[in-house]
Amino acid sequence: MTVTDSILQGNRLSLSRLLTQVENNSPEGRAALAELFPHTGKAHLIGVTGAPGTGKSSLVNQLTLYYRKEHASRKRVAIIAVDPSSPFTGGAVLGDRVRMRDLSGDDGVFIRSMATRGSVGGLAQTTAALVQVFDAAGYEIIIIETVGAGQSEVDIARLAHTTIVVEAPGLGDEIQAIKAGILEIADVLVVNKADRPGVENTERALRSTLELAHPTKRIFRHHGQAMTIESPETDATLWIPPIIKTISTDGTGIPELAHSIAKHKAHLHQSGDWAARDRARLRSEMEALLQNQLMDRFLDEVQKKIYDETIEKVYNRGLSPYEAVKYLLNGK
Amino acid sequence: MTVTDSILQGNRLSLSRLLTQVENNSPEGRAALAELFPHTGKAHLIGVTGAPGTGKSSLVNQLTLYYRKEHASRKRVAIIAVDPSSPFTGGAVLGDRVRMRDLSGDDGVFIRSMATRGSVGGLAQTTAALVQVFDAAGYEIIIIETVGAGQSEVDIARLAHTTIVVEAPGLGDEIQAIKAGILEIADVLVVNKADRPGVENTERALRSTLELAHPTKRIFRHHGQAMTIESPETDATLWIPPIIKTISTDGTGIPELAHSIAKHKAHLHQSGDWAARDRARLRSEMEALLQNQLMDRFLDEVQKKIYDETIEKVYNRGLSPYEAVKYLLNGK
Repeated sequence: MTVTDSILQGNRLSLSRLLTQVENNSPEGRAALAELFPHTGKAHLIGVTGAPGTGKSSLVNQLTLYYRKEHASRKRVAIIAVDPSSPFTGGAVLGDRVRMRDLSGDDGVFIRSMATRGSVGGLAQTTAALVQVFDAAGYEIIIIETVGAGQSEVDIARLAHTTIVVEAPGLGDEIQAIKAGILEIADVLVVNKADRPGVENTERALRSTLELAHPTKRIFRHHGQAMTIESPETDATLWIPPIIKTISTDGTGIPELAHSIAKHKAHLHQSGDWAARDRARLRSEMEALLQNQLMDRFLDEVQKKIYDETIEKVYNRGLSPYEAVKYLLNGK
Repeated sequence: MTVTDSILQGNRLSLSRLLTQVENNSPEGRAALAELFPHTGKAHLIGVTGAPGTGKSSLVNQLTLYYRKEHASRKRVAIIAVDPSSPFTGGAVLGDRVRMRDLSGDDGVFIRSMATRGSVGGLAQTTAALVQVFDAAGYEIIIIETVGAGQSEVDIARLAHTTIVVEAPGLGDEIQAIKAGILEIADVLVVNKADRPGVENTERALRSTLELAHPTKRIFRHHGQAMTIESPETDATLWIPPIIKTISTDGTGIPELAHSIAKHKAHLHQSGDWAARDRARLRSEMEALLQNQLMDRFLDEVQKKIYDETIEKVYNRGLSPYEAVKYLLNGK
């Protein structure tokens, strides 16, 4: 039986082995990926991001348990945890061990941690490839979990159909600054740790930022009293991110979160955004690969001596990096 | 007078204009950059990173004030604030307004915020270019401030000679997970908000992680008692990141921080790491530019019809992104 067949039939060992090959970008991995590709395009990709301390991992854990135990259709769930704590060490994620306790022994769940080694381009690329493997292997829900609000997280969030941004009360004022940007990628907002003091403030802050970003309501001041007027634009293409309060330690709000995710999926299909996001993802994946290949090819062709001499000139401030590139491209 | 001359002579308006041109990657910007490049290589590049809520911005503020007012040599300081809050909005940073109050009117300080628009590659590239402009313009200290611990921050930190990682007490347990990775890029560690409860715990956690990462001391257990033996390796190439406690709101610890930064600079020169970091930075900058140019060139050469048809096949799952690239490179 080929690797591809064995993956399609749900062999976990083959799956695990292939994920490693894909992560290492080995020829076997690439070949299997090409064979599996026609079987992709079915999974719902859910991105979960948020600052450290928001309790993302346990939220993902609870959501997965819900999909496995409570949810009518018992969906198969894959989790890709992109872990910025180990760009260098490549160590295991603390949260994973906790996870394993609740989710281990369940054949319908597969958890994969990814260290953020290598370049960022590479990271989004590798994540995209892992997603394809899980998609072909029949995982209906693929959760991509990232920490933080940096550009790399935004890039990875772009891979998802539905992006969940997790906030929590009392994480400091500077958090406010992050919200504005990260909110724009959010399809669903979660205020986790909703049993903590300050939850109302966090929710209010999110709501007012949302209202700025999605001006569906216009507020008039009339004799000193606020008067809200609903906007007439309530067409199908408009999605206002809902705010869901959760307590991931005891599962409060998880069914509501799952419901919002399902509603967003329906919205994506209705509005045509599902296909649009798919296409954007595949295009950027292809173009990143193309860029890498072009570079590899160039380095194969250029004379090593000329390349090294040019870099040396840059080191000595004789040639700016830009001029050096111009020289290499025209002079080789 | 040319733009270059006017920059070299310290004209702020020309500088400001050029920074915008460089950020937009305009032909004028690139031309000026090439002319200014021979004048670079003098500045001390200091990266400051840390999670939201650690008070990085006010720390940078205080450090700058110190360099301007207290420091014997009154160094000129440029601050590049890379702001993840506005990858999409491009809005002003809240912290900047606070900064302006303390630092405005001082000709020896220049603050530039950069929205994280565009790709990450682009972000590090643009930051590198801005650094070169400031360097040529005679700013002796260039502070690159980023938020968070994601890959993009790590990439930007790599631009710096000295990387300062800022922590603060009581930012939640998940923070612990981040430390391991981010610590490896730290040259100086700061525990800011040192007047808050929990500062000892934060410091202790940092110290034990540091000891794991830098095994200069070996600890033997002897009859149940810990016995610390200093390692004999105390050569000049070894740098153990110091931990500095600061209170950025009142300036406590800022002179000590400046002192550690100066010591690290001396260490870099002594060990040869200054040149090594410089070279690594220039090489990666040149290679990123090269990669972009190769892609632009390819897209100019390939037939649009073939390119579009190939992408369409990927959309329809007929061709994997990897196969598509292979086809485009061999088939064109």
